[in-house]
Amino acid sequence: MNKLGVHAYVWEHGWSREQATRAISRTAEAGFDFIEASPMDPSTFDRAHTAKALEAAGIGVTFSFGLGFEADISSCDPEKEKRGRALLFEQVGLCRDCGGTSIAGILYSGFGKYYTQPTAEGIRRSADILRDVAEEAAKSDIILGLEVVNRYETNILNTAAQGVEMCQRIDAPNVKVHLDVYHMNIEESDMASAIVDAGPYIGYFHTGDSHRGYLGSGSIDLQSAFRALVRAKYEGPITFESFSSRVVGQPLEGILGIWRNLWEDGFDLATHALMYTRAQLKAAQEVERQAARSRLP
Amino acid sequence: MNKLGVHAYVWEHGWSREQATRAISRTAEAGFDFIEASPMDPSTFDRAHTAKALEAAGIGVTFSFGLGFEADISSCDPEKEKRGRALLFEQVGLCRDCGGTSIAGILYSGFGKYYTQPTAEGIRRSADILRDVAEEAAKSDIILGLEVVNRYETNILNTAAQGVEMCQRIDAPNVKVHLDVYHMNIEESDMASAIVDAGPYIGYFHTGDSHRGYLGSGSIDLQSAFRALVRAKYEGPITFESFSSRVVGQPLEGILGIWRNLWEDGFDLATHALMYTRAQLKAAQEVERQAARSRLP
Amino acid sequence: MNKLGVHAYVWEHGWSREQATRAISRTAEAGFDFIEASPMDPSTFDRAHTAKALEAAGIGVTFSFGLGFEADISSCDPEKEKRGRALLFEQVGLCRDCGGTSIAGILYSGFGKYYTQPTAEGIRRSADILRDVAEEAAKSDIILGLEVVNRYETNILNTAAQGVEMCQRIDAPNVKVHLDVYHMNIEESDMASAIVDAGPYIGYFHTGDSHRGYLGSGSIDLQSAFRALVRAKYEGPITFESFSSRVVGQPLEGILGIWRNLWEDGFDLATHALMYTRAQLKAAQEVERQAARSRLP
Amino acid sequence: MNKLGVHAYVWEHGWSREQATRAISRTAEAGFDFIEASPMDPSTFDRAHTAKALEAAGIGVTFSFGLGFEADISSCDPEKEKRGRALLFEQVGLCRDCGGTSIAGILYSGFGKYYTQPTAEGIRRSADILRDVAEEAAKSDIILGLEVVNRYETNILNTAAQGVEMCQRIDAPNVKVHLDVYHMNIEESDMASAIVDAGPYIGYFHTGDSHRGYLGSGSIDLQSAFRALVRAKYEGPITFESFSSRVVGQPLEGILGIWRNLWEDGFDLATHALMYTRAQLKAAQEVERQAARSRLP
Repeated sequence: MNKLGVHAYVWEHGWSREQATRAISRTAEAGFDFIEASPMDPSTFDRAHTAKALEAAGIGVTFSFGLGFEADISSCDPEKEKRGRALLFEQVGLCRDCGGTSIAGILYSGFGKYYTQPTAEGIRRSADILRDVAEEAAKSDIILGLEVVNRYETNILNTAAQGVEMCQRIDAPNVKVHLDVYHMNIEESDMASAIVDAGPYIGYFHTGDSHRGYLGSGSIDLQSAFRALVRAKYEGPITFESFSSRVVGQPLEGILGIWRNLWEDGFDLATHALMYTRAQLKAAQEVERQAARSRLP
Repeated sequence: MNKLGVHAYVWEHGWSREQATRAISRTAEAGFDFIEASPMDPSTFDRAHTAKALEAAGIGVTFSFGLGFEADISSCDPEKEKRGRALLFEQVGLCRDCGGTSIAGILYSGFGKYYTQPTAEGIRRSADILRDVAEEAAKSDIILGLEVVNRYETNILNTAAQGVEMCQRIDAPNVKVHLDVYHMNIEESDMASAIVDAGPYIGYFHTGDSHRGYLGSGSIDLQSAFRALVRAKYEGPITFESFSSRVVGQPLEGILGIWRNLWEDGFDLATHALMYTRAQLKAAQEVERQAARSRLP
Repeated sequence: MNKLGVHAYVWEHGWSREQATRAISRTAEAGFDFIEASPMDPSTFDRAHTAKALEAAGIGVTFSFGLGFEADISSCDPEKEKRGRALLFEQVGLCRDCGGTSIAGILYSGFGKYYTQPTAEGIRRSADILRDVAEEAAKSDIILGLEVVNRYETNILNTAAQGVEMCQRIDAPNVKVHLDVYHMNIEESDMASAIVDAGPYIGYFHTGDSHRGYLGSGSIDLQSAFRALVRAKYEGPITFESFSSRVVGQPLEGILGIWRNLWEDGFDLATHALMYTRAQLKAAQEVERQAARSRLP
Repeated sequence: MNKLGVHAYVWEHGWSREQATRAISRTAEAGFDFIEASPMDPSTFDRAHTAKALEAAGIGVTFSFGLGFEADISSCDPEKEKRGRALLFEQVGLCRDCGGTSIAGILYSGFGKYYTQPTAEGIRRSADILRDVAEEAAKSDIILGLEVVNRYETNILNTAAQGVEMCQRIDAPNVKVHLDVYHMNIEESDMASAIVDAGPYIGYFHTGDSHRGYLGSGSIDLQSAFRALVRAKYEGPITFESFSSRVVGQPLEGILGIWRNLWEDGFDLATHALMYTRAQLKAAQEVERQAARSRLP
């Protein structure tokens, strides 16, 4: 059974002790299995406090982040590669110390708007660094999820097929594809086929809607996405992600272009998303069960 | 706010005292606001027992049925018209005595497979009789919902627009259109537009899926249907209807062609449908709220 | 490449010499590769005339029909079985004599509204007879396509999976599944998955829309259907089928419940369907091509 | 009847005389009514040559462009406002001299990735300048279409409702909303409702698909979009827009993030898009005609 989680930015745009405590307890209160922490600055992240709060709330944690351009491991710039590698290793430590099981996001390039094509050499060096990070992560049973995002947030992995190709180049069992319906809605030709074809390479999954507001209130064909996840036999984590100008703050507001107030009340948003997800997941499972029930007498 | 209900055939294929008691208590237990009773034979229906069981369970009731061909008020056969008129008046009494507020279904013709076109005269006489029934129903604040069904279940009202036209011909404030997504999926050109255009004429609404199984496990675009209901400002009852060969029994099995086992466990089916409906309804309401939240600074 | 055809009832409700000549020449004029003749009464079918007209027009032909209840080979009634077997053999001869390559439709049961469940024995005997018919058809390289239709038109094959199961029971290489989006829209949990899963068993395919009118003017997700056909590598015939009260006539009007005027002008309808089909088919092929174009540098 | 056009970047990434001649003649050859020229640098645009080539080809022209950040009229920077105003007036002259009837695009702000929220004052000043430009454009019967684009391409007009609001603030009869399904797929809660609600404010319309490749090969619900256009009684121009890394070139490649080869052959792409558009438009018109055809006898 898929564990269901929620992204920390539904609650707070930072991770001070007070923010972490609130976000974690609200996540538990809403009924989720885990929270996805997304620390912009890992150096200010209080690991012990977080681990304690998670234990008190009885929920798990996953991590996500995107490399800054100054730490872009696809840049072929040794200084940036060095910073990126260090950051990735730091995130592995952070995740391990908090009892986390996956690190997802834009781990392979800068997170943001590129203005030129990626290079084959940059992709090769990114893959080499990620292979090393994966080796370290494997020691703590941590999975790396390479997030496939839209053209405005990276120039490398825009489709699930490209994500699978990158996993194959890195060739480490704990490097997986992280798919996100918000991005797939922009980049994939056929979201359901892309999910089914990625199949066992999927290691992490983000739901949300096309404008990043309430689940089911945008233009994404979520029914197809959930059916495809069941068809692909995906049993990993599913995290609801949403951003409103009321919470997100800079620099994420700027990178993601969150100009609108998509919602006011994160708790209302999150509990609805959980209900919506359970309703769709069960409906999708029933689709698979129908065939068995429809055999000829 | 829309009251949410469930069709009695999710629980039982009859309405003996034991069946009524079970169906009503299960409906309440699953969290619905009301049950739609669908008595095939009103003469065996124990009104006092039903009223008491509803009160004990704290839920409401609506009624639905379809005229048999021997009581077809669109037939231009005086004997059949007489039987049909009597049955409709009997259903009004039944509904009133149980504290019900609406009678829905195929009230205007036979319920089943026709082999010839309807006649203008038959439709006129059906409308005349329904005008009389509506007058009687109005005394008890009961609404008549003319169910628009697919071509295999009537030859008269197959589209929402035809339903509105029939309401206009009858011209009684308590005669409304009863729409059902299962039928609309077959007959309407555009389900959402049909709902929006029917607007204030809608008095009763059925959900379900294309094969009549689990909600969200078929081919109906339910998201569009719920959005259209919100857009049409529909605030009346919404009832989940589903049929499986495990429960339905004759004669309904034959009329509706329920050849497959679409589900085993009515409680699992019904609680899922309620969760699914709430998740979709709220998402649809958020669609409407977005515009207000997106004004320019 | 799929051959594209059109159902004869788009032009005419009968197959007299004049009707046959007109239907065939209009089919060619509209740009189709073949016509699907659907003779209700094979005894009045002029084979030589049809063959000549086809040759003159430069198009091919396929055949479709449904067994009447008096010739129901799933009935366990020896008299009906005998009539059904004879009719099926007669259709094979008809198809062969006109240069046709497939016979599709409801070949395995009565075509129409059943009121009771099928029996295991009836299905077994139907399969046995079809095995014999298939042997005869194989001599002329004719494929039998078992049409999967909705619950109101047969009680046996309502889903693609049931169609595949029946093919496996008959176990003849020239017995295939005939899928039709109109029926799938009612019966399948997920049309695209059903098509992909049926895969090589598909031998014939009907398009149309939910109300049987203009292609793309109803509620069927045709885009998904065409993508699934390409994904399933289906390269067989695709026939557009549509019925309007202006053309259809009895008895088909009654069996199919064609109560509405869905269109006036069959030529306008058919040329649009051909354009629509080509546009969707090509778009679907481009979906498949995208993956190859999106490889990492 | 809607005139159907194609964006110049389907053919060429520049507008030298040779490029203009080729683009215009290919547009005519493919069967479109007009070409949308999108000059990045109006100073190098040969008006006389273009007008002559258009006349020779027998097609019309529309114009589109986006303000650079150095000419951002929403910036509250007088130097940038001055440059923006001058550029907008220059485009009006260009359009007039070539016989064009509309100028569409991101006319109200910079075209590209913002990192901060817009200001109320900036929007007010942008509206003031556009009011002046509109007055000038009106002299030549030119419509200004304010393109509503996604969050990564402007921070002001992301939804159709915001576009309508901006039109109302400018309050000039020739300032209209320019909608584009690619952007709506990201930003609108419900694309069809947004189109219907914008209604008479719509002055220009872009089709395309979610990844900007072949029409109908992505995730956009184009059927709903075309139906909404017909329902909104939109009779203005509809332009197909698509970008592939094979043609686009800098700086547009960078601004739009065109990292993938979505197609090789612009002619194949464009003729398919035209066929697809015609097929969908006609199907959408048939949806509207159905109601009239389905009246009760």
